[in-house]
Amino acid sequence: MSGGVGGAAALEPLVRDVLGALAEGAARRGGPVAAGAPAGIEAAVAEVFRTASGPTALGRLTELLSHGSADPADPACAAHLHCPPLAVAVAADLAVSALNPSQDSWDQAPAATALETLLLQELAALLGYDPAEAAGVLTSGGTESNLMGLMLARDRVLGAATGRQIELTGVPRTGAGGGLGAAAGARPRILASAAAHFSVQRAAALLGLGEDSVIPVAVDSQLRMKAGALAAKLEQCVERGQLPVAIVATAGTTDTGAIDPLRECAELAAEYGAWLHVDAAYGGGALLSDRLAPLLDGIELADSVSLDWHKLGWQPAAAGVFLVRRSETYASLARRAVYLNPADDEEAGYPSLLGLSLRTTRRADAFKIAVTLRTLGREGLGRLVDACHELAVAGARAVAAHPRLELHGEGEPGGSDPVLTAFLFRYVPEEGAADGARTDRLNASLRRRLLREGGAVVGRTELPGEGPGRVRLKLTLLNPHATVAEVERLLGAVVAAGVAEEGA
Amino acid sequence: MSGGVGGAAALEPLVRDVLGALAEGAARRGGPVAAGAPAGIEAAVAEVFRTASGPTALGRLTELLSHGSADPADPACAAHLHCPPLAVAVAADLAVSALNPSQDSWDQAPAATALETLLLQELAALLGYDPAEAAGVLTSGGTESNLMGLMLARDRVLGAATGRQIELTGVPRTGAGGGLGAAAGARPRILASAAAHFSVQRAAALLGLGEDSVIPVAVDSQLRMKAGALAAKLEQCVERGQLPVAIVATAGTTDTGAIDPLRECAELAAEYGAWLHVDAAYGGGALLSDRLAPLLDGIELADSVSLDWHKLGWQPAAAGVFLVRRSETYASLARRAVYLNPADDEEAGYPSLLGLSLRTTRRADAFKIAVTLRTLGREGLGRLVDACHELAVAGARAVAAHPRLELHGEGEPGGSDPVLTAFLFRYVPEEGAADGARTDRLNASLRRRLLREGGAVVGRTELPGEGPGRVRLKLTLLNPHATVAEVERLLGAVVAAGVAEEGA
Repeated sequence: MSGGVGGAAALEPLVRDVLGALAEGAARRGGPVAAGAPAGIEAAVAEVFRTASGPTALGRLTELLSHGSADPADPACAAHLHCPPLAVAVAADLAVSALNPSQDSWDQAPAATALETLLLQELAALLGYDPAEAAGVLTSGGTESNLMGLMLARDRVLGAATGRQIELTGVPRTGAGGGLGAAAGARPRILASAAAHFSVQRAAALLGLGEDSVIPVAVDSQLRMKAGALAAKLEQCVERGQLPVAIVATAGTTDTGAIDPLRECAELAAEYGAWLHVDAAYGGGALLSDRLAPLLDGIELADSVSLDWHKLGWQPAAAGVFLVRRSETYASLARRAVYLNPADDEEAGYPSLLGLSLRTTRRADAFKIAVTLRTLGREGLGRLVDACHELAVAGARAVAAHPRLELHGEGEPGGSDPVLTAFLFRYVPEEGAADGARTDRLNASLRRRLLREGGAVVGRTELPGEGPGRVRLKLTLLNPHATVAEVERLLGAVVAAGVAEEGA
Repeated sequence: MSGGVGGAAALEPLVRDVLGALAEGAARRGGPVAAGAPAGIEAAVAEVFRTASGPTALGRLTELLSHGSADPADPACAAHLHCPPLAVAVAADLAVSALNPSQDSWDQAPAATALETLLLQELAALLGYDPAEAAGVLTSGGTESNLMGLMLARDRVLGAATGRQIELTGVPRTGAGGGLGAAAGARPRILASAAAHFSVQRAAALLGLGEDSVIPVAVDSQLRMKAGALAAKLEQCVERGQLPVAIVATAGTTDTGAIDPLRECAELAAEYGAWLHVDAAYGGGALLSDRLAPLLDGIELADSVSLDWHKLGWQPAAAGVFLVRRSETYASLARRAVYLNPADDEEAGYPSLLGLSLRTTRRADAFKIAVTLRTLGREGLGRLVDACHELAVAGARAVAAHPRLELHGEGEPGGSDPVLTAFLFRYVPEEGAADGARTDRLNASLRRRLLREGGAVVGRTELPGEGPGRVRLKLTLLNPHATVAEVERLLGAVVAAGVAEEGA
């Protein structure tokens, strides 16, 4: 057992095994990802899974996991919002695994309960919320946080938590409201940009509103929501007798880091009585940087916000945060469970976080974030954010300067430098990109070639819209220790793979 | 950074700090929980939170977390389904934090993707499912797993994921079905015992069905669902023109470990065309024991199941598992995200777990479970389950034999030995328990006294129903290394605290 006075001593030799196996696996991998097709890795895993047993299983399986991981600490692994965790955060997370506090009741997590509360107040202040008014919780990530924001938006209007339709307030332009069983004319609607994360549609489906309750709002070429288009869609909702329950603004789209016009979204939300949720899962990291924080101007007006410190925050997953501006809007999650938070215990001073989360058992993910903030400070973390941003700007310019690479948004009036740390581009075949379908196939297959050869992990996405010519490659630069030369080498590998695919 | 070839070396001194601080904090705590009121712990946390900075922050905060934890490895900490994690599982979890694989795309987690798939096949077989037909995913726990089961049950009937009402199949006795906007006469209903976990109501609310869509079914004195009562409630649904979309059977209630009649539930589910979800978050651990596994007879007939290896499985949170018997019933979660699982990548052999989870970023929680199963084997884990069960039986008998303690269900015809590893009891004041309100207050306050004095962490709950005389204390025995003498000492501390409260 890892607990008790003897727990650390029991852990010590096992932890030594793990560290040794991590290093061995990384050395055998020798790059960002193990070479080979998925079937090869599957066979290797199946073999170890079948034969490992007893005291050597830990080392064998750890070596395998290390060898078979895509390593975000390698400068050539730059596909996703998948950061290399800081060693100090990983070490802190070990304490959480060993002590196993669970945040669903005070008597499973006395210190962790207090610590999560303090951390959330600090993060609320970082956001520009009044910490005395705000409330929040640690989550598994932006998907859960977005779900929570939309659930509160739904319940404010529809009262679904209690199964009873509550009175509509603050929806001046729609008249009497819906309810899940209401007439089609008052169907609830969620407005989000066409580049918003797919978890918005998922949340709508889960909440029983249907995916088609999400109305996509047009974006500009950098995938930023157009405020005028949002206003028009809201007006259209009203004309159709629909209920705009929420606007989801994205602060840092997955593909380009685009930040929607938050202040204008807040003004429109107020005008139409809609809840404003800001998905800052990626862009929230900008709050750590003096230089980039102004990009999030207006976020303090949001009713709720998603932040992910396992993206631009260098935490191992999960380190999601959900915050609301005013704690009283959290009401529909409030929960009394006689075995977890009886009323007389609360009266006796035992606090409960149960009514803040969708989960019951809940790992103390706040701890690693608190340790990281205390170790590096906001300033130290801000330097990491700035380093990644600078790397992305340099990388995008290198793409723009390369004859066989085309930067998305190149030559745009607003400039084509990345907003945060990600940018889109594509490989252009020798004869040009006029044949969109062929160019798409080439970009998709050169990316798989890089994976198969173990040389690089590059992202891939598609621009909004239909038809060929939409596939783009993506770099998401989250390794502050990578150099511009390493990014240029990565781009060189992309071009080489493209040339090889053209000849294949 | 914790990754790369140098990652393990960077981690080594930090991990050493953590192990030292864990031991120091545990020694300073000197028992199951730190003595003092919550305000005292809050002040200590606030002080360290305010003053810790730089390289010493990790050690200071870890020592604080260790000191301020409730330690489930201490035999006097036996309140909740909050297990002491195995050191080998904790060490394995360190590898996951360091490598940070995320299960939302293959290129963030090549080996972890293969490993999760294999583990789920093994767990499906353990359950009695056909591994070739089944599917599943790791979850944050029973609450998320129960939500998934009920979501699939809802979507099978209502098609909410696509926002379009799908054709009803297999609901022979209800005629044409509802839809979230359907008439009140066809409102969807979920049937669950009065002792089912509150996450069932929560899931119903989240899914937009309303908490009042959950119809409570009567239980016997051991909190086991009565099959006759379930049949009657189903018939009542049909008579009222309601739609029984799901039956939730509990295999191991939180308070008494009671297991609903699974086979009869499956027969009724088939008869009424309802989805059967079995919440085996606690009782699933019985599958590891040859002696206890027969208690779960019929679980293999369920459409979906929740299992939590952070309960009777000795994993650090989270280690939840959701399984469905037939993978095709998973359809409503299927998801194509152009940046995570493009169709041509899947055709090229790159598997994706994205459409199996409600989350996007997802920690590789399968790894620690796989390592534990390989290290101890099912047999080794089964011995731990049996040890805890024997401890609970001995503890319950000691309660029954004590003049000042009353075992819940004492003298019942079916016997009062615990089904799994938990039992309910109460302290009886000198003059007897006739004054229910006073007895409740005494039991509640003696429990807080034990917490305040740092002597023991004992559980507390209330029996279903209304009015005074319902408060019960609870022991949940999850420490296989605890001895009967230690449990008896814990019961002695309960009595002493009761006597002290009577005199207070």
